[in-house]
Order: sequence, then structure tokens, then C-alpha cells
Amino acid sequence: MIIVLKPEADKAVADDLLGKISSLGLKPLYMPGAERVVLGALGDERVLDQLHLDSHPMVESVQRILAPYKLVSREMHPHDTIVEIGGVQVGGAKFVVIGGPCAVESAEQMRKTASAVKQAGAAALRGGAYKPRTSPYSFQGLGEDGLRILRDVAREMGMPSITEVVEVADVELVEQYADAFQCGARNMQNFRLLKALGQSRKPVILKRGMAAKVEDLLMAAEYILSEGNPNVILCERGIQTFETATRNTLDLNSVPLIKQKSHLPILVDPSHGTGIRELVGPMAKAAAACGADGLLIEVHCAPEDALSDGRQSLYPEQFATLMRELEPFVRAAGKRLQ
Amino acid sequence: MIIVLKPEADKAVADDLLGKISSLGLKPLYMPGAERVVLGALGDERVLDQLHLDSHPMVESVQRILAPYKLVSREMHPHDTIVEIGGVQVGGAKFVVIGGPCAVESAEQMRKTASAVKQAGAAALRGGAYKPRTSPYSFQGLGEDGLRILRDVAREMGMPSITEVVEVADVELVEQYADAFQCGARNMQNFRLLKALGQSRKPVILKRGMAAKVEDLLMAAEYILSEGNPNVILCERGIQTFETATRNTLDLNSVPLIKQKSHLPILVDPSHGTGIRELVGPMAKAAAACGADGLLIEVHCAPEDALSDGRQSLYPEQFATLMRELEPFVRAAGKRLQ
Amino acid sequence: MIIVLKPEADKAVADDLLGKISSLGLKPLYMPGAERVVLGALGDERVLDQLHLDSHPMVESVQRILAPYKLVSREMHPHDTIVEIGGVQVGGAKFVVIGGPCAVESAEQMRKTASAVKQAGAAALRGGAYKPRTSPYSFQGLGEDGLRILRDVAREMGMPSITEVVEVADVELVEQYADAFQCGARNMQNFRLLKALGQSRKPVILKRGMAAKVEDLLMAAEYILSEGNPNVILCERGIQTFETATRNTLDLNSVPLIKQKSHLPILVDPSHGTGIRELVGPMAKAAAACGADGLLIEVHCAPEDALSDGRQSLYPEQFATLMRELEPFVRAAGKRLQ
Amino acid sequence: MIIVLKPEADKAVADDLLGKISSLGLKPLYMPGAERVVLGALGDERVLDQLHLDSHPMVESVQRILAPYKLVSREMHPHDTIVEIGGVQVGGAKFVVIGGPCAVESAEQMRKTASAVKQAGAAALRGGAYKPRTSPYSFQGLGEDGLRILRDVAREMGMPSITEVVEVADVELVEQYADAFQCGARNMQNFRLLKALGQSRKPVILKRGMAAKVEDLLMAAEYILSEGNPNVILCERGIQTFETATRNTLDLNSVPLIKQKSHLPILVDPSHGTGIRELVGPMAKAAAACGADGLLIEVHCAPEDALSDGRQSLYPEQFATLMRELEPFVRAAGKRLQ
Repeated sequence: MIIVLKPEADKAVADDLLGKISSLGLKPLYMPGAERVVLGALGDERVLDQLHLDSHPMVESVQRILAPYKLVSREMHPHDTIVEIGGVQVGGAKFVVIGGPCAVESAEQMRKTASAVKQAGAAALRGGAYKPRTSPYSFQGLGEDGLRILRDVAREMGMPSITEVVEVADVELVEQYADAFQCGARNMQNFRLLKALGQSRKPVILKRGMAAKVEDLLMAAEYILSEGNPNVILCERGIQTFETATRNTLDLNSVPLIKQKSHLPILVDPSHGTGIRELVGPMAKAAAACGADGLLIEVHCAPEDALSDGRQSLYPEQFATLMRELEPFVRAAGKRLQ
Repeated sequence: MIIVLKPEADKAVADDLLGKISSLGLKPLYMPGAERVVLGALGDERVLDQLHLDSHPMVESVQRILAPYKLVSREMHPHDTIVEIGGVQVGGAKFVVIGGPCAVESAEQMRKTASAVKQAGAAALRGGAYKPRTSPYSFQGLGEDGLRILRDVAREMGMPSITEVVEVADVELVEQYADAFQCGARNMQNFRLLKALGQSRKPVILKRGMAAKVEDLLMAAEYILSEGNPNVILCERGIQTFETATRNTLDLNSVPLIKQKSHLPILVDPSHGTGIRELVGPMAKAAAACGADGLLIEVHCAPEDALSDGRQSLYPEQFATLMRELEPFVRAAGKRLQ
Repeated sequence: MIIVLKPEADKAVADDLLGKISSLGLKPLYMPGAERVVLGALGDERVLDQLHLDSHPMVESVQRILAPYKLVSREMHPHDTIVEIGGVQVGGAKFVVIGGPCAVESAEQMRKTASAVKQAGAAALRGGAYKPRTSPYSFQGLGEDGLRILRDVAREMGMPSITEVVEVADVELVEQYADAFQCGARNMQNFRLLKALGQSRKPVILKRGMAAKVEDLLMAAEYILSEGNPNVILCERGIQTFETATRNTLDLNSVPLIKQKSHLPILVDPSHGTGIRELVGPMAKAAAACGADGLLIEVHCAPEDALSDGRQSLYPEQFATLMRELEPFVRAAGKRLQ
Repeated sequence: MIIVLKPEADKAVADDLLGKISSLGLKPLYMPGAERVVLGALGDERVLDQLHLDSHPMVESVQRILAPYKLVSREMHPHDTIVEIGGVQVGGAKFVVIGGPCAVESAEQMRKTASAVKQAGAAALRGGAYKPRTSPYSFQGLGEDGLRILRDVAREMGMPSITEVVEVADVELVEQYADAFQCGARNMQNFRLLKALGQSRKPVILKRGMAAKVEDLLMAAEYILSEGNPNVILCERGIQTFETATRNTLDLNSVPLIKQKSHLPILVDPSHGTGIRELVGPMAKAAAACGADGLLIEVHCAPEDALSDGRQSLYPEQFATLMRELEPFVRAAGKRLQ
């Protein structure tokens, strides 16, 4: 850690801080420059957090040298992690496509959609039973009935199921029905929920928050791993920017960046990442091309009747076309569609 | 609601959509232009949400005419709402300053800080017992012990207390100890928590999320009001932008904008809004000047030892100076410090 | 155009505005609703700009129905435009890679770099003679000497050359030396420069500004076309967001979005779009996959000695590897590397 | 400067870099840690820019200790700079209000507006003759005719005049007519224009770019000062964020931040900073409260007929009211309206 002192800091301030650094077992460094005194602390700088050096009135700035995360870091764990969702591998040489509607609306809607999705070649089924909606007057999901429908249809089709959990109190119930949890963008820093998911062993698809830096996403994953659950799959789904022509700005830079920094698999959700049906296909291909481990795609048997996110849901035939067109991109990226 | 059809949409599409609009009891309008057909729907367009017109493949765009919120809207409720926190009025002609540390760390720290804050003229005391922290390795708050300390110290000083609640399961407990809930920026769209707070009657200070538009903040407040709790106080605390010299970008535009759109009181938190101790004073004055109903300010008896957010916490003497300097700005804005 | 009146607007206001709409030859529409009066204006709403309806104190909001651009719009011109740079086609079924250093530094550096770039399969050569730099103390480019070196080396290699122009006064000079102009991100709304480029007939690669929406980029291109130069090539190079791990956020959503809205070709610059050498390759492939017409890539014979942007410049061998790996993605996207 | 090496960097890399640091006359430092080797360079690190250390393939990151600007820095120049515009002081204990229309439209419009502005107590007159407009089909300003009208009306009223310059070729002409240049947000990084303004001695009001950090703004000012013109006045006018309810997000945090970092005066433009007439007053007061040295406000004798920016222009009576209400805020901030 590098600590830059304010110009008015005297030698006594430096000595005091150097003493504190030593007392934690780190090697202190004193670097007096012409315009500023700079201090260094060599060793595991994470222990320095307890000193809160940036709060000191004579400290101008504090700069970390090491990343603030450990368990998710590729440095500590150089090989790619592969997470299994009900027998389907996510990460490594496989490319996974998870399809399904935004929300479970009825058994019939799920069955029609799942059947189309399965036939087109998707490996897993998604569908929300608890829907975080901006307006209290919008459809909020079917709750446990939705979970039951999703599980039954997924079993019928022989596909694993993924569904969102929005609240600590629901974790146990959702765990009984689904093969993997989805933790949504709005809950990426719901730390209590992250801890609860960390106490499960079921896989968690953790979506990047709308205002979250890649480092924040990795720290959120660290919460889950630090509670004991290593089965975390990250998901880029777009961030909030000034551009209004698309619902979000899909930040594909994050895919190769995360591959550098972390061993965890990373999916891309081009449905939320664009918010526009016609852009989903091109961005799905781009995600495969830049090294993503798979896709999360909204498909609905009749998008114009969807109770949520219809604007970004693919028609079954669009999804089938996409699956066909996607394959050469996945292959060129050195992976295999499963 | 204005519905713009795609150029390729024919008369049959328009007729079908107009029929749907009529069937919901709204007045349909057909406006054929040279390059686009435009449809209108006059009446309470909120019922149109169930039609999901933006999902239709022949619809280019849908534009609302009315705001999506009702209960929080000034149109429905032209007079300023005044919310009482343990006898202290928030809103109307009063200006309230709520001071205290980011986190409750010990009885001694709370007592020292509260006493300084009280003496300087603050009207209410804040302190967190449950801390949402980016890193799982950081101090996470004292939990119920923290709630107890906060309550005891607040009683001693004769001040109402405010504390953050981060989880549905804690609502009941927090309600027993504190005079008002704070719902933090990261939970602004934790809709389950909003509903739980809506079922209480205790005041809720609802902070704007880091990626939330003012409309999103008002919709989050609508969740609480729609469950029956009218005692909502909004709080601007800065948004996420590209500027890195400050922790957040304090968006004071939101203050007069919210005063136009809503009858709810609005506070400003210049501590999180800047992240830098030296900027807190100037921005507190600016908040008073542009019409805020009060401030939420982090003060710590010894910021350099604070377990969280020390960099942005005021020293007791800084807070006392600020309270003195603030008064003429509050007065010029037509309010009275309480 | 849809004009929403404020609740307090009376019939006289509506009549006055409707009269103004009629007077411009548009068809006026009167739509009284329960809570707002809405007016419509059918026809070429661009003429309405002169009414400045949004300035009227009784107007709440004005919403366009048509895009504000014409000449760049795909609606007016459904087929893809193909622009030729010194014999190299940009747009249509071809995929073009333009490589070279950020800045021309010396004849030797250009020759080494150009030779590597040519051998690896690039179709055109780039190099800056006028460098917009954040600091006045940084290298600002070689000026006309740089133009001369670029031209000579490009001729030697038999490649067309592209270089940035930053100032109206330089347009004529740059035109004599280069086969295409580059208009940089910082100049995307230098409208005087856009007009000067519109009076040339040489191709212009117009880069998206850091704070520019896609619509702003299209409007900037409209400036050039409206002056008579149809040879415009757009370029996505990343936007400014809160993410700090990458230099910019490459917004690949813009590629398929622009393909929908406009007939102009679009390139992607993954060098500026990421700012990190290791991310350039993956994002180049992603750009090809989502439908871009080509790439602009910084390559330097010795990036560690580069006078600018070395951090994001590829080594010659990295560029050669990328060209090999890129080909199957280009092919899968239905285009052909040239 | 602190240089963090990649984990794979060996001793030879470190030695090579340390040698380069020494060769520039800086003191090199070698700090081997458990997980990374860190190098330091003590002295005027600005000379290190020529080493381009961040381009080195074995360098993970480079962190500056000192700000990249010198001449604009408060450290080099602790006292507030006061700039004179035609006898009116900007900076120090004075608070200046500059009012006038967005664009000069006619002699009559200027005379009416100027007279109202003068009577209400503004100290200087603004008006644009060259208008940067998003659309090529919008009013682009009256050019030299506009300059002449502005000068004549300003003389009549006995007020200094300020007008925007958008192009190097116009600098000389504008200089003949106006008392101060305005360099607009879109030209903040038009470095050639900055240099040309640096060669004048007339004051320059430099507006912050829409995507510019405060540091970028200070670097842009450094360009002007480094060419010899010390008469620079900064201006906060809002930045581009995800919020769409206001035209820009006025970042008032920048005012006290700039006061810390720089000796230059800083104005605020609440007209562009909000884009909404009703928010201009509150934000003008907030600007005064947080320490700004003055305001730039758009006023028009008939905003509903304005050829540009009417939505954000004040009516003369609104401006007069604002001037009256502003005074106690200016006084409370320790300044005096002039």
C-alpha cells in the first residue's frame, strides 16, 4: 500500500504511521520526496484496512497495490473453475446457452417456451417466480406456484432450471425447486443475500449491478465464496450509462477483463444488455467471440403477450435461428456448444 | 400514451391495437402521418401497462404522457408532506440536521459523538448497526448491540434516532429500537424490503440508489406508500458518474426537481455525496440553498479511528463550525433550523 | 411531434399552438385527456424546430416521432453505403483492418510498423501527425513532417493512409497527403471542422465522442453529408462511464443499432475502446461478430518506446496472431477480410 | 511515481527500469513485496512521462503522486487569482453575475434583454454569435453581425461583453469585439483553440466538457496558461450522466474541489446545468452557497421565441427576482455582489 501524505505533514506524522504499519507485521517504507512524503507498506495489505489510513487528516491519498479480493482471484487459483448446474458444465471448453422467459406466467406458457428452447439447443431453462419490478403496480411474479411450474416443466424437458431469488427468507424454498440461483443486478450488493447464498452449495449466477465496476462484482462474488460456496458464475448484463437508445450498455470489455482477473466462469445476458429484440442476436455472437462461457437469453412463446420484458424477448423462431448462427462463433472461440 | 408504429405496420395492426385500447376503457386515437402511423390512448394510461404495447413487433416506441407514480406525486397531493421523527418535524418550514457516525462502534464512541452533535445543534442522531460493506473482510456492524447502544445514547441526549435496516427479517427488531428507518442506496430497489417498510408506520428515510434516476427514486417511494406508510423522506446522496475525484457526484438538481414532482420531504447527505471531509461543509450549505429540508451528516468523535467512512466524517469542531455557518443559508432559503 | 401541455394550460394556449402548427403546413391534432391536453403535429416535424415549442411556458414536454437526421438515415437510403479509401472498400461484404501506430514518430518507426502491419494482412495504414493530448507537456505530433512520412511509407507499402485532422486550417494540407481523414472523438462536435470536412470529397472516419449518444454521432455525420460529402465512415471507440478498469467502455451495442438506423459503414477501435493491449484481440473479434465493417487497431514496432498510447498498442507478433484468429469470426459474420 | 510490476517480472526488469529513472535525475526506489515488486521514483515525476512506463509489458500499473498540472495548481500559487473582464473583477471577494441570451438574434432582442439584465443588477453581458448546434438544420448564429450587435449593446449599457469562440480562425475577430472569450464545453479539449486563446491576453471563460473530469478541466486550463495567458476563469456547467430528467447533471462538488486544487476563479452555469427554467434559481443559490465566484445565466426577453435554449432561459422578471433572492446567499458565503 502506498500512502501519500499532505504537504503539511511533518516527520512526527510519518513516524506515527510507520509505527502502526510495523505493528501489523508489514514492512514500512519511508520515501521523502521534494513535494510530498510517501510511505509504503509491504506485505498482505489487506490487514491494513483496519488502520483506516485514508481517514487520517494528514493523509492525502492511499493507493492499493493488490486487488481487494482473494478467493475469486486468478492469482490464487490459476485454473478456470467449472461449475455444474444439474449436470451441465459452465466454464472450461463448453459454451452454455440458458433460455426461457423473463417470468413464469403459466404452465402452458412455460411448456411452450421450454419446448421451443430445448429443441433449438439450449442447455438449461430459466424463468422468474419473484420479479423485482420498478413499479408496485406491475406483475410481481407467481411466487411458489411459479417455482413449481418451472421445476415441473424443466423435469419434463430434461433440463436443469435457474431462477432468481430476491430475499434471504426465500433461499431455502428456492433451493428446493431450482438447480441454480440467479442473484439479480439490483441485489448484487444485497450482502445479506450474498451471505445466505454462500451458505448453500447450489450454483449461483451473480449478475453485475447497474452501477457496479468489475471490481465490485468480484467483491460481491468474494462474499459468496468466503461463506463456503465455490459455485459462482458471473454474468455481465449491461451497465447504466448516458446512452438511452438501448436499455443498458452491455460492457463486453468486462468478459476478457474478468478472464484475466478471476478463475470464475462468466456468462453474458444480451437481452437485458440491449433491451431490444433485434440486437440480442448480434450481441450474443459478440459475447461468444470475446470469450464468454455462455449466454442467458430471454425467449417467450408469445413476446407480445409477455407480462414483463417482452420488448427484449426473442420469438422461438428467432432463438432457433440464433442458435444455428451462433455455432461457428463458439467454435472459432475454441469452445463447444453443449 | 403515444404509440408510434413501425413504417411497415399496416392498417390491420393499427385497428387491432386501437381495439385493445378501447377494451380497457381508454379513448383511442388514430393519427396517420406521412412517415409513421401514430396511435394515442387518452385516460389513465397506467392501466395500459397490462397491454405491454412496447413488446409488439410492429410498435416502434411507446411514450408515456403521465408520470408512472401516483401517491408520491405533487399533482395528487399539492401540499408539502411533513413527517415526524420522534417529535422532530421534517418538511415544511423546518430544516433538520441529523448527525452521527457512520457506524455504532461502542457506547463510548456514540456518547462522545452524540454529545458533540447535540451541543452543536443537531436535531436527531444517526448511527448504523448493520453496515453494507463492499468487502466481506470489513467491519459489518454490531447488530442488535449496536441498536441498543444507539437507542440508549439517543434517549440520554433526548434526541430521536435513525438507523439503517438492510433486510426484511430485521424490520421488526429495528422498529423496536429506532425512531426512523434508513433504507440505504444499495437497497433502494430491494422491493421486498420496501414493502416491509410500507407495512410499518415508522418514518423511512429512503436514499437514492447510485444508478437511480429521480423517477426511479419516486417509484421506490411509491412502493412504500402503496403499502400504507405515508411517512417517507427522500434523500439525495450522490450518484455514480465518471468523475473519480469525489466518491459520488452529489446531484443537487434533484432537490428542486423533486420539489416540483413530489410532496415528500427531501434531505441531502453531503458526506456520501462527496466522500471528502473538506467538501461536506460547502455542499451542506448548497443543499440548504437549493431548498432541501435537511441534512444527514457523518460526524465521528475521532474520524481517524473510525471503522468505516472516516475519510468523509467531520470532526466535532468542524461540525460545530458548520452548524454556525449554515444558519444564514437556511434562513435565506425561508426555513428555520430546529 | 407530440406536445404535452401543462395541467394549467387552457384552451386558448392550445388554440394558439395549433394555429402555429397549421401555419407551417403540418396537420394539427387536439387530444384533450383527463389530466393533460396533448397536441400532435403530423408531417415533416423537422420544420417544427423553428417554433421552439419546448420553450413555451405552458408546454410540459415535446416528443419527436421521427429521428432528427435525414441523410444518414437508413429509411431514406435503405442500401448499405460503401466508401472507398484509396481503392479499399469499407462497407458491404468486405471487412477492413486499418493498423498502425497512434502517432508518427519517425520514418524508421513508421516503416517497421507498416511493414509488419502489411505482412499480417491489414488493408490500410494509420498514423497521427497531429495528436490531441490531455497535457500540454506531452508529445503533440510531428505535424507536416509526420504527414509526409506517413504518405511516403504508405506508398512504399502500397497501402492507403488515414490520419487525424484536428483543425479547419489543416484540412487542405492533410487532404494533400492522406487518403482519408480521421475526425477524433474530441472533435466529434467541432461543427466547424465537420463542415470543412463536408466540403471535401475525401472519406472521413468519424469517431464517436466520449459523451455522445448514437444519435449525436449520427447528427455529427449529418453535418458532413449535408455539406455534400457522402463518404462518411462511423467509428465506435468507447464511451466514458464509471468503470475505471478499462480506459473507455466499448459500446458494441452501437454497432447493430447503427446498422438498423443508418446506411453508413461502421468500424470499431478496440485499442481506445479498452486501453489495454491484452483486451484488444478479444474485443476485435467481438466487433467482427456483431456486424462491424472493420477495425482500427493501434500497432507499434516497439510499444514500450511509443510516445503515446503504448499501453494499448499491439506488438507486431500480437497483431499477426490476431489477424489469423480473426478470420473465422469475419467469415461467420458473412464478410470477407480484404 | 509508483510503478507496480507484474508478478512475472524478474530482477532484470526492475534494474532496467530503475536505471531509466536514475538517468532522468529522479531518485529510484526498489520495494520488493511478497506478491509484487514495487518501484518508486522521487522528484518531479512529470519528466517521467517521456519514459512511458505504463507501456512496458512487465508493468502492471503506474500511479502518480503529484497532480499532472502545475501552473493552475494552488500549491504553486496559493492565493486566489482575480481576473478582470472590462473592469469587472472575477474571483476574490466579489461575486459576478453574467446574464444574457444564449444567442444574439437581433439588435432589438439584445437591447431589450441587456437592459433588463442590467437593471436587475448583472455585471456583464453574454450572447453567442457562433452557436455550436447538434443539428446542421438549426440556427447557427449571426457570426460577425452578432459580434457587432453584442459589442454595441454592451457599450450602450456600460457592461463588458462575453461571447463564445469556436474556431482558431475566429480568435482574432472575436478579440476585437468582446471583452472576454467563452470556450464552450464541446471545445474544452480542442487543444489548438486552447493554444490560440493562450496567445491572447483577454480573459477566457473555460467551460467544463460534458465528459471531463475536474482534472481534465484543470489540464485544459493549463494549456492556456502554458501559452502565456493567465486570465482563465473556469466554469462548471453540468456533466453527462444517466439522469434524463435534467439536461445535464450540475456537479457542484466541483466548486469546492477546484477551490482546493486551483487558484483560478470558478463560475457556475445553472442554465445548461439543469436545462429547465424552474431549476435555474435554486441551483444559482446553491452555487453561491458552495463558494462559486459567480454565475452565467441565460436570460431572454421572450424565451418562447428564442432561437435556441429557450427552455432554460429566464424571463426578465424571473431574473430580477433571482437577483434579489440571491443576495443573502452571496453575503452568507462571504462575498459581495457587484
